[in-house]
Amino acid sequence: MNRLSVDLNCDLGESFGSYSIGNDAAILPFVSSVNIACGFHAGDPAVMRKTVQLALEQQVAIGAHPGLPDLVGFGRRNMAISATEAFEMVVYQVGALAAFAKAAGATLHHVKPHGSLYNMAATSSSLSEAIAEAVYKVQPEALLYGLAGSQLIKAGNKLGLRTVNEVFADRTYQQDGTLTPRTSPYALLKEESLATHQVLRMVKAGKVMSQQGLEIAIIADTVCLHGDNPHAPAFAKSIRQALQQQGILIQAPHT
Amino acid sequence: MNRLSVDLNCDLGESFGSYSIGNDAAILPFVSSVNIACGFHAGDPAVMRKTVQLALEQQVAIGAHPGLPDLVGFGRRNMAISATEAFEMVVYQVGALAAFAKAAGATLHHVKPHGSLYNMAATSSSLSEAIAEAVYKVQPEALLYGLAGSQLIKAGNKLGLRTVNEVFADRTYQQDGTLTPRTSPYALLKEESLATHQVLRMVKAGKVMSQQGLEIAIIADTVCLHGDNPHAPAFAKSIRQALQQQGILIQAPHT
Amino acid sequence: MNRLSVDLNCDLGESFGSYSIGNDAAILPFVSSVNIACGFHAGDPAVMRKTVQLALEQQVAIGAHPGLPDLVGFGRRNMAISATEAFEMVVYQVGALAAFAKAAGATLHHVKPHGSLYNMAATSSSLSEAIAEAVYKVQPEALLYGLAGSQLIKAGNKLGLRTVNEVFADRTYQQDGTLTPRTSPYALLKEESLATHQVLRMVKAGKVMSQQGLEIAIIADTVCLHGDNPHAPAFAKSIRQALQQQGILIQAPHT
Amino acid sequence: MNRLSVDLNCDLGESFGSYSIGNDAAILPFVSSVNIACGFHAGDPAVMRKTVQLALEQQVAIGAHPGLPDLVGFGRRNMAISATEAFEMVVYQVGALAAFAKAAGATLHHVKPHGSLYNMAATSSSLSEAIAEAVYKVQPEALLYGLAGSQLIKAGNKLGLRTVNEVFADRTYQQDGTLTPRTSPYALLKEESLATHQVLRMVKAGKVMSQQGLEIAIIADTVCLHGDNPHAPAFAKSIRQALQQQGILIQAPHT
Repeated sequence: MNRLSVDLNCDLGESFGSYSIGNDAAILPFVSSVNIACGFHAGDPAVMRKTVQLALEQQVAIGAHPGLPDLVGFGRRNMAISATEAFEMVVYQVGALAAFAKAAGATLHHVKPHGSLYNMAATSSSLSEAIAEAVYKVQPEALLYGLAGSQLIKAGNKLGLRTVNEVFADRTYQQDGTLTPRTSPYALLKEESLATHQVLRMVKAGKVMSQQGLEIAIIADTVCLHGDNPHAPAFAKSIRQALQQQGILIQAPHT
Repeated sequence: MNRLSVDLNCDLGESFGSYSIGNDAAILPFVSSVNIACGFHAGDPAVMRKTVQLALEQQVAIGAHPGLPDLVGFGRRNMAISATEAFEMVVYQVGALAAFAKAAGATLHHVKPHGSLYNMAATSSSLSEAIAEAVYKVQPEALLYGLAGSQLIKAGNKLGLRTVNEVFADRTYQQDGTLTPRTSPYALLKEESLATHQVLRMVKAGKVMSQQGLEIAIIADTVCLHGDNPHAPAFAKSIRQALQQQGILIQAPHT
Repeated sequence: MNRLSVDLNCDLGESFGSYSIGNDAAILPFVSSVNIACGFHAGDPAVMRKTVQLALEQQVAIGAHPGLPDLVGFGRRNMAISATEAFEMVVYQVGALAAFAKAAGATLHHVKPHGSLYNMAATSSSLSEAIAEAVYKVQPEALLYGLAGSQLIKAGNKLGLRTVNEVFADRTYQQDGTLTPRTSPYALLKEESLATHQVLRMVKAGKVMSQQGLEIAIIADTVCLHGDNPHAPAFAKSIRQALQQQGILIQAPHT
Repeated sequence: MNRLSVDLNCDLGESFGSYSIGNDAAILPFVSSVNIACGFHAGDPAVMRKTVQLALEQQVAIGAHPGLPDLVGFGRRNMAISATEAFEMVVYQVGALAAFAKAAGATLHHVKPHGSLYNMAATSSSLSEAIAEAVYKVQPEALLYGLAGSQLIKAGNKLGLRTVNEVFADRTYQQDGTLTPRTSPYALLKEESLATHQVLRMVKAGKVMSQQGLEIAIIADTVCLHGDNPHAPAFAKSIRQALQQQGILIQAPHT
């Protein structure tokens, strides 16, 4: 009998040069996979090397986290890029991160677009197809992480990539399965107990209460945990324990 | 009986965004291998994709040409980088270019450092060892191109990489095998016939007349042709013909 | 009696590092003002210094041409920037260009946003107000160039800046005074005679035929000439002569 | 009778995008002048705007802190730039920072090169002359801060700029007045009491004990305090109090 399992992922390696961000070492013990910045929106070759090493030591699955070429905006400002440009920037960044993995004796487990690239892809089939094709051509055995039920998941499935539906612990959902935009006052679940409850429902029952009050179906293969606030490690630990207490296995999806 | 052969290489894919440089299509028919910029000193993901495609169509060997992170200086200003930083920037750039090669159904044939990284490595064993290690860990089957007899060649050999000694058609040499610095008025062989003669001597006899007037031994596995001046394609054609007339085969070294 | 006059402007100084673009010296004799790139979408400190010098020698009015921080995209990809970010990037770039002008003994005559920043501002009052405020606070005596009748012109006027309505010789217009998007097959007037005729009508009669076939009113204080194609200098010369033959003075607007 | 006075300066505004560095607000109450990063080695337009505002509120003198174009290396890696390039990068950065000062209703008080640019200038007369000329041409009334007795001070004096000799509280000195390189184990005075004592001797007696044990003459117009370690504000406070207890006035030099 299969035991229920879920992946916990977080963004890692977002420091740059003399600039340190996040609390990589503190969040690592609680996740099963990590998404490492590739130098466009964050990260640099030195940070990538060290972060891959850190992930390898903690035995978590190593993913590439390609983003928009906008360091000062941290890849969070939408840019009008073409599908071809999306393909090219993903090939480039995935290749760079895969090289650090290979140099350390590891392999690239997955790819998850970052920030605006992730969000734009979620609703754009042409961007999603370009991103999926980039992954397929560079590392066809890698998994593609995307917003649960999004265009990116569809594009990956169409190409024959193994896809991983991502859900968010502390974000609220719209009726159509998209996240409530951050500009809304209701975008975030601020109480930890509510976030934990939402995660358990998504993982165990495949359901989430939309912000409009109707329950919708959702696939929760992986849960995104943020590492960029001081409270993040404690929250990650708490989510992890809640899942384990329900007998749910925390592990990265198999490639 | 083995027929004498030599590789002709040139730098390619040095355009960036809306900026076009070099005359890639015109020089390609005359070379057997190319060194493609990887986005640090020149090149960008779009240019890399198109250049790999172009090289594949012309059936020339595809190499990565990693450089210093100095786009405005075209990677030609020495920077005080550490050996670790050299390792990291080569892993990053080689990984990125190898990904474009793989996405196009090609494989990376070689790595040749660019500009100041090439020159600094030529005389620094620590930088050379770091660069060689990067190639070895990311793509151990790739060849390492370096200045004939330089520290880079030694470092590659020590690690068990296959190395390729590079000579220059139009540069003059010092007694110790280094190139006469560009700051000297005698740095360049300006007459085409002299350059052609120098190449033939290096390839056939393994010798070159130093700028001091004494002949020195030199290994010429590959000849660097520049593509960034209007006269470059004609000169490349002329060198190629002169070599072929002597029965010398023009081909990329086997991996 | 006042003689009719108009300004002819072109973008200048868009080269970067080893990359050369445009034909600055060839177009200069035909224009009365230039917009010099400031290092974000194009240009670098060396190019800015040389271009200011060139403009000064030709006695054309020197303007700053601030753009989006997107060198690889040449500032032509829309980015979701905030009004505050627009203010900050214009202050920065105008300050940098004004410093080169001052160092050369010149003064900054005007500011014209570049590419996507120009286009986004044309229809966004918040971006336009931010840009106008930046000019007002850094160089209140400078003129603000913007699309004729656009939000940018309105924002400048509201602040008390002197504004300059810009028209395009070779672009077609919509009923509402906006340019036909470049994605349309009718975006460009490809015949030189049509472009010349359109300019003369705009300058002399203040009218332009919209792409829908109805005439609309337009203020033509300055005409934008492009310098980035081989034919540009000849076309600039022809437009200039056509205007002069009608007794129209070619001169930069007074500050 | 003139009361003895000295300036206390620190580097400020070194954050970038989402990256925060230093503890600007905590160190500000203890200094009389600040050097604000200009976007090349650190800082960005948003950080520059906010930092100028912060400095203005605290009524400290506002300086530009231009550096090498090396964000990932924080401007601390020597680069082989030409004197012309040094001139151009200082004009650009000083202009940008001066624009933020002007937009906030302040004026630029001084210029101090950052990191490797500062260190390279200290011993290079050609770089120093280029930097001094840039300041002279862009903001001739601004003061030029440089290592006490260095080439930069000499170059500024030669041009007629007002110069400010800078000393370091926690660095040791060589016989020739240069700082002991950071690579030496004796580069730093680790005990606070020794640093305080050194500062008092330099300010009151114009002398410092060299690392070789012989006293040398030194002019101490300004003392550099670092803001990038957690202990920095406490140390700044302590130095300030020690100086004040000796009746020494803490104030920025007059322009």
